[in-house]
Amino acid sequence: MADKTLHDAFLDELRDAYDLEKQIVKALPKMAKAAAAVKLRAAFEGHLKETKGQVDRLEQAFRLLGETARGKHCDGMAGILKEGASVMEEDFDDATMDACLIASAQRVEHYEMAAYGTLIAWGKVLGYKRVVALLEKSLMQENSADKKLTGLAEDGINQAASAAL
Amino acid sequence: MADKTLHDAFLDELRDAYDLEKQIVKALPKMAKAAAAVKLRAAFEGHLKETKGQVDRLEQAFRLLGETARGKHCDGMAGILKEGASVMEEDFDDATMDACLIASAQRVEHYEMAAYGTLIAWGKVLGYKRVVALLEKSLMQENSADKKLTGLAEDGINQAASAAL
Repeated sequence: MADKTLHDAFLDELRDAYDLEKQIVKALPKMAKAAAAVKLRAAFEGHLKETKGQVDRLEQAFRLLGETARGKHCDGMAGILKEGASVMEEDFDDATMDACLIASAQRVEHYEMAAYGTLIAWGKVLGYKRVVALLEKSLMQENSADKKLTGLAEDGINQAASAAL
Repeated sequence: MADKTLHDAFLDELRDAYDLEKQIVKALPKMAKAAAAVKLRAAFEGHLKETKGQVDRLEQAFRLLGETARGKHCDGMAGILKEGASVMEEDFDDATMDACLIASAQRVEHYEMAAYGTLIAWGKVLGYKRVVALLEKSLMQENSADKKLTGLAEDGINQAASAAL
């Protein structure tokens, strides 16, 4: 059997991304519910809508490549979300819990940025221009979501958490 | 019992970082061994040395806080490395395997950047200046390691992988 090529690796990564986005769709409502600050809850709810759009975009990417959209279990995201879930079970004061939720979400965002970054780099050398354009939109959203979370942390949540000491 | 505070969350994150760096120390030699390109192997070997330095820096941070250095199992990194290990078992052509190793390593780096980013932000509001200075050194190394990997990918490895199609 011939070795698997970069095209095969690209499809594997696309399936991994499809699975991880679906895992995030399930996790975000729990994170929104656990958030005390109204702005943070709203940020999670807003990102849930974006994440559903990212799932749609991945389905479009599969179609463009003539492939059926299907996921491949992403152990990385499963581990990150498992860790996030255990943080939510801790007895932190409200502001610290919000700071921890932001920390968990930023681990998620950073991981996604790496995943989309790889897909975009590989898509470019493979000549999958329309697919790359879709993935670049999602990467931009992940970058913005991460910056928004940093803004919420620096704009009061971290300060409030340290004031509770 | 009183709720856990941001200081407690900071210690939890520090223990998480200590554990994840140790996981990476174990994983990097396998990644170096799996790399075909000499420059990529050298990059992994170089980053192994840096990672050991990061473990030392975390031990210094614990000392500065009057705490014993101990890890807390990091499920996120365990998942990321599990995924990386399964990629290494695939039958990719050499250049594609190198591209996949870079992809795995960049997921690791991005996750670490999020972890250190959180620790630095919290350390600042908590007033742990000397600890923050240590963590900032490690974050800079993670950023550089990530950029170096992007450089290796764009400087030939991705092109070589696509040429094998």
